[in-house]
Amino acid sequence: MILQTIEKMNQNIKFAVIGGGSWATAIAKMLCVNLNEIAWYMRNQAAIDHIKAYKHNPNYLSSVEFDTKKLILTSDINEAVRYADYIIFAIPSAFLNGELENLTESLEGKVIFSAIKGIVPETFLIVGEHFHKKYTIPYQNIGVITGPCHAEEVALERLSYLTIACGDASKAKVVANVLAGNYIKTKISDDIIGTEYAAMLKNIYAIAAGIAHGLGYGDNFQSVIMSNAIREMKKFIRKVHKMKRNINDSAYLGDLLVTGYSVFSRNRMFGNMIGKGYTVKSAMMEMSMVAEGYYAVKSAYALNQEYKAKTPIIDAVYQILYEGKNARTVFKKLTEKMD
Amino acid sequence: MILQTIEKMNQNIKFAVIGGGSWATAIAKMLCVNLNEIAWYMRNQAAIDHIKAYKHNPNYLSSVEFDTKKLILTSDINEAVRYADYIIFAIPSAFLNGELENLTESLEGKVIFSAIKGIVPETFLIVGEHFHKKYTIPYQNIGVITGPCHAEEVALERLSYLTIACGDASKAKVVANVLAGNYIKTKISDDIIGTEYAAMLKNIYAIAAGIAHGLGYGDNFQSVIMSNAIREMKKFIRKVHKMKRNINDSAYLGDLLVTGYSVFSRNRMFGNMIGKGYTVKSAMMEMSMVAEGYYAVKSAYALNQEYKAKTPIIDAVYQILYEGKNARTVFKKLTEKMD
Repeated sequence: MILQTIEKMNQNIKFAVIGGGSWATAIAKMLCVNLNEIAWYMRNQAAIDHIKAYKHNPNYLSSVEFDTKKLILTSDINEAVRYADYIIFAIPSAFLNGELENLTESLEGKVIFSAIKGIVPETFLIVGEHFHKKYTIPYQNIGVITGPCHAEEVALERLSYLTIACGDASKAKVVANVLAGNYIKTKISDDIIGTEYAAMLKNIYAIAAGIAHGLGYGDNFQSVIMSNAIREMKKFIRKVHKMKRNINDSAYLGDLLVTGYSVFSRNRMFGNMIGKGYTVKSAMMEMSMVAEGYYAVKSAYALNQEYKAKTPIIDAVYQILYEGKNARTVFKKLTEKMD
Repeated sequence: MILQTIEKMNQNIKFAVIGGGSWATAIAKMLCVNLNEIAWYMRNQAAIDHIKAYKHNPNYLSSVEFDTKKLILTSDINEAVRYADYIIFAIPSAFLNGELENLTESLEGKVIFSAIKGIVPETFLIVGEHFHKKYTIPYQNIGVITGPCHAEEVALERLSYLTIACGDASKAKVVANVLAGNYIKTKISDDIIGTEYAAMLKNIYAIAAGIAHGLGYGDNFQSVIMSNAIREMKKFIRKVHKMKRNINDSAYLGDLLVTGYSVFSRNRMFGNMIGKGYTVKSAMMEMSMVAEGYYAVKSAYALNQEYKAKTPIIDAVYQILYEGKNARTVFKKLTEKMD
């Protein structure tokens, strides 16, 4: 009875997904299980036309078939924002600011959920903070959707767990309910800052894991990096926002592991190339995309000049990516600081 | 100056390695870096003859070349025990009791280090407890050598970290010093019970990870298992022996990860076969060896009838391996208990 009421309530709340990449596509897929209609913005009109004609995204998770009657596809971000009560952003953090500059619709009264794992390069803020500070959205209307969750496994309908964090638990519940399904389990959290920092920091640690692999370190050392990384993450996040949290929950440790151990992670791949001797520029060109952790480490390093947490792994990645230091030398020193 | 004194002191302490497998071979290799002589017991006389003739173990880590002048090889466990002040046991736990029954030499005054990750099946005790209770060795003379460390990577001289735990810190230091080298970093701990339980429990979680993989669960779920496993491990160990420990240290979390994420782990492989539908018996026959976690889960489950920690993963593995329950059904229920 109560569940039915919640379901009815959720049915009436309008959702928009912002982004045309793999994670946005995965989220659209999850939403379509529980909702009759969603707005879906992507800037690529050709992709929209393809989805309308062939019921799948031509570029990402193309095995996922959509019921196009449920989709209000648009290449106008304002149309999507106007339509929705809840807006889920799932674009690379590097493009967020540019997209938002096209916005003429007001975000007032909208509930903003970030499925972005990174730092907005122009403001050096995590996404929630960016919306809060630049668009004066209250934290009660800001939330985070976090993994551990590779979009590719959502496409395969493999069991995955999401954590939905929001300052307002009732809004977290709404999002948790519309995303949950046969192969998606959701839980809610009030740690909006911590979960988003964790999602951002894990990309730095995935770069570190990649560098180590590229330098020839083995599985034994990989597990030592992860063990040190989660302790470092705990210290860092505690400095940013002190509250009771279990750093070994899936949203923190699980998310770190799924990225750090994945050979498909862009961040790990980027680190691997650096470890193998590519320059930062050539690694980026070779990958033809930017690893989120590249921006994250600059911001985390800068932030930590204030927080002064002991972050030897972040420091090492920063020195390699931004100070041109030799990866082998930096990692040799880093190994002395680990245990 | 002080370091030289310690080194001299270590040089005078006599070490024996008990076991002829890969981990025993790795430990013998590490010891030979820092010591001029060690005793090395293995029951297989043909392997001894091979090492004497060709300088490498024919069966395990055969790429490792030994300076045979340093080795007192013997197939008589009493000769090794008589020789040594410090005895490092590195045989499968299933064989320990049988080997010890051949012992006529006294263990009094000897320092016993366990590099065994498991439960002694006859007594359902971890190795340290077995020596303490059955041989009245005081805990001050009992220690544990623990990873995260695949023996294969020691052979490749890839950087690895060991934790050496002992009730008596000075003895932990002795062992930490003789094992440390260019590619081995060691730290000491006083958590002799916790590190050994962690090393035992991680094999159960590796079986669980293998079962999940065999059943078709993906990487997202794998990271959720690991995140739940470390929390479960923390609760269990706290019940067994409450003390201040950071469960995310390498000896606990690192050791869990290196086993749980390794496709080479016997325990994970065993679980994988169970997940794919092999019976316990046929999986064991196929592998022609026994996974440590098979004994560990029986013991952990029995112990927990007393401790009553919440251990859904251990319970699930127990039900599958010992109660003949269907792996798919048990895991379906288990996924409801995770987050």
